[in-house]
Amino acid sequence: MTETSSPETPGPRPFDPASLRFDDRGLIPAIAQDAEDGTVLMMAWMNEASLRETLETGQVTYWSRSRAQLWRKGETSGHRQRLVELRVDCDRDCLLLQVTQKGPACHTNRRSCYYTAVRDGAEVVILDPIAE
Amino acid sequence: MTETSSPETPGPRPFDPASLRFDDRGLIPAIAQDAEDGTVLMMAWMNEASLRETLETGQVTYWSRSRAQLWRKGETSGHRQRLVELRVDCDRDCLLLQVTQKGPACHTNRRSCYYTAVRDGAEVVILDPIAE
Repeated sequence: MTETSSPETPGPRPFDPASLRFDDRGLIPAIAQDAEDGTVLMMAWMNEASLRETLETGQVTYWSRSRAQLWRKGETSGHRQRLVELRVDCDRDCLLLQVTQKGPACHTNRRSCYYTAVRDGAEVVILDPIAE
Repeated sequence: MTETSSPETPGPRPFDPASLRFDDRGLIPAIAQDAEDGTVLMMAWMNEASLRETLETGQVTYWSRSRAQLWRKGETSGHRQRLVELRVDCDRDCLLLQVTQKGPACHTNRRSCYYTAVRDGAEVVILDPIAE
């Protein structure tokens, strides 16, 4: 055998961001999860350019729908997210980002955006802002 | 004081599903996370009716965009999700469901829909289907 590959043993499939199913705005939801302890930190949106930048730099970049521009998470606040591993769901229409979060993920200065629990029909705040 | 409440000590705020920020289709993304070990299982969509049914029954019900009807998770497969706790994010436009998942969450019979990792630019399947 002089061939370096054969149809029977394909190599790993290269990941192409264009192969994802973006919505009609060109966006895909991305869930950020703490890679160490599994805490779900936030959910935001990516377009293809923000995902490519995230993969190239290792720093998570979203697409800001309100500002209609790339949102380099933590660029102003310093609360950056380093990408540990990207995961794609079965329908290729949602992303899971395993990250290392510097400081709080939430703009309210809480570690996670999911700080409001619904218990016995009432809203309960279960996380305090991080002291700085 | 004969009053049973005062402005200084408000009781817990009742949770009203109508207070959430649904998108222009009347939907809100809902992330399902294993309440025990923190695994992110799937992301799907809810409308107000599916969220109300979820809270009333304790069994997670989504809105199927492809079938345009309520999707009582596991009704056919038996792979139900019991709601342990609902959490709302800071912008009130995304939900986190802490659940107890019976069997696999994914239609591919894997525990989680996020079974594809991107490593060194290639897609790697990191979860096998659950044997039944």
